[in-house]
Amino acid sequence: MPLDWIRQSAKPIDTAARDAAAARQAQLTKPPGSLGRLEALAIALAGLQGRERPSAGRVQISVYAADHGVAVEGVSAFPQAVTGEMVRNFANGGAAISVLARALDAQLEVIHLGTVNDPGRYPNVTRDWIAPSTANFRHQPAMDAAQLDHALRCGRHSARNAAQAGADLFVGGEMGIANTTSATALACALTGATPLELAGAGTGLDAAGIRHKADVVAHALAFHRAALGDPLEALQRLGGFEIAALVGAFVACAQIGIAVLVDGFIASAAALAACAINPSVRERLLFAHRSAEAGHQRVLDALSAQPILDLRMRLGEGSGAATAVPLLRLACTLHAQMATFAEAGVSEKA
Amino acid sequence: MPLDWIRQSAKPIDTAARDAAAARQAQLTKPPGSLGRLEALAIALAGLQGRERPSAGRVQISVYAADHGVAVEGVSAFPQAVTGEMVRNFANGGAAISVLARALDAQLEVIHLGTVNDPGRYPNVTRDWIAPSTANFRHQPAMDAAQLDHALRCGRHSARNAAQAGADLFVGGEMGIANTTSATALACALTGATPLELAGAGTGLDAAGIRHKADVVAHALAFHRAALGDPLEALQRLGGFEIAALVGAFVACAQIGIAVLVDGFIASAAALAACAINPSVRERLLFAHRSAEAGHQRVLDALSAQPILDLRMRLGEGSGAATAVPLLRLACTLHAQMATFAEAGVSEKA
Repeated sequence: MPLDWIRQSAKPIDTAARDAAAARQAQLTKPPGSLGRLEALAIALAGLQGRERPSAGRVQISVYAADHGVAVEGVSAFPQAVTGEMVRNFANGGAAISVLARALDAQLEVIHLGTVNDPGRYPNVTRDWIAPSTANFRHQPAMDAAQLDHALRCGRHSARNAAQAGADLFVGGEMGIANTTSATALACALTGATPLELAGAGTGLDAAGIRHKADVVAHALAFHRAALGDPLEALQRLGGFEIAALVGAFVACAQIGIAVLVDGFIASAAALAACAINPSVRERLLFAHRSAEAGHQRVLDALSAQPILDLRMRLGEGSGAATAVPLLRLACTLHAQMATFAEAGVSEKA
Repeated sequence: MPLDWIRQSAKPIDTAARDAAAARQAQLTKPPGSLGRLEALAIALAGLQGRERPSAGRVQISVYAADHGVAVEGVSAFPQAVTGEMVRNFANGGAAISVLARALDAQLEVIHLGTVNDPGRYPNVTRDWIAPSTANFRHQPAMDAAQLDHALRCGRHSARNAAQAGADLFVGGEMGIANTTSATALACALTGATPLELAGAGTGLDAAGIRHKADVVAHALAFHRAALGDPLEALQRLGGFEIAALVGAFVACAQIGIAVLVDGFIASAAALAACAINPSVRERLLFAHRSAEAGHQRVLDALSAQPILDLRMRLGEGSGAATAVPLLRLACTLHAQMATFAEAGVSEKA
């Protein structure tokens, strides 16, 4: 079976490295626990990376762009042409994630999986064409089995690239007009939440637009209901090429042992699918931020995830995860460079 | 009067620069508002710095260290000797703020205002000695008028140093065993909250220790009650040298026009005092994080402040503010470098 790989177990957490990091934190010149989540993040990264002193220096950001058939239902505030236009904007370095990747000195990989408005080839955009868009999942499966397989393997390829580059951390991003609708449908199928509970403004729908989006998702869930018990089939029927690529990337990073920093609503829906398909993936994921998109909290709850940031961001592209990277870097630097009580000759708690 | 300067108005916000920044944000290639607080921070900094494209590149961090007479009441989990020992740790680069300043390439200024345990002189520590400690404010004013004046002018001197260095942003930090007790007393006097509402664990008190700390503060408030109507007098009677230095720095930065990023509980109590003494200061302060220290939320509420981060930090030294600096930098970089819809040829909202 071509998809056997996706169910193989994630690399186990290195508990010895994690415990050593926790012991080191207790010796640093500060009241125990007083660096809060920065301590917890350094300790978690130690377990994920298998070293007492972890690093978030080398970061790979992989952004997948693809169009969605369901866009014809009028579920986005922006026209579908924007997906292809944004591929060009990524290529020219003008998008938010382009700016963030430069500022962070991160390796940015943009993968073009298919858009209705094809901007053509660019030297710094990987073309891994599946189709101009998924099918409209209101009436039919978004992908066929070969397309799902293609998208998942595309994500796995990014994880392998990251491993080859020695990445400390993987960030996955996405671009695709109407993809909050796809993520909403997928998250409803995986959590049991209703479309009205999860549907949000996306790129900027008004209240009537959100109701219409929820209605489209409700129709789609009814159409596919009999097939949604299997999370991989739910992903094929309701997902997008870029969402499936994120699933493949998250699973493969977990298997290889690269720490993953999950972005917002769409990336979290992909993480939810990855964990439903392969539960061993969960403990290798860190969650960067709580999005302003309405359904994100519910998806985070389903993952028992506590995000690092809450900045009311809702852009996608991996931008929220990229924004959290400096905090992981500071956590690692504090962990590695602070003096211990013994080194500094500072008295401990009375 | 030597303290006349502290009531002079802060530099007004440049509303034209702020409005220009807001107009630019609306043209960048993202759904309007989708960068959330990163947009709001870039726009706020534009108004504070008087330029459409603000910067957080050059950061000055000034950390004030001083001892507190009230430490004899047994209100801290750590011995008083730690304040002097931490001055040496700052000098040797092993403290959290030392590591953070290096990682951020920020200018770190450590000012030693007086400790019971004098670590001596260090080339990278400014010695601006007031006394080995404040007096025990449970029974007498913490400072006399000359000491308060000295500490406030010390903070103003830091602000002038920051201006001379062309700093885009000022972070004030503190070190002083028992200074959460002082900050609690000051915040009670300025907000009307009770000691039990504001007293927290500080460096690590247990529940009985917190009750004792609240009791010490309650006695102090009763002793000084008749004099607490004037915020400058409340600061003299209940504050510390380092807290008064922070007040002087915040007021002087606001007058000069340097943006201030306020740290946690103690720095926020100083900010509260600064704004009570000189209300024009308030609009020039940004708040970095919500501390895990129990009373911080109440102090933030009194300032109508919405902090950027909530990482359960409670270390002081300016560490929470330093941790937020990369987010301000990313906000400025996105604001300056993202392409507009017109530049990128991306379609706008339908």
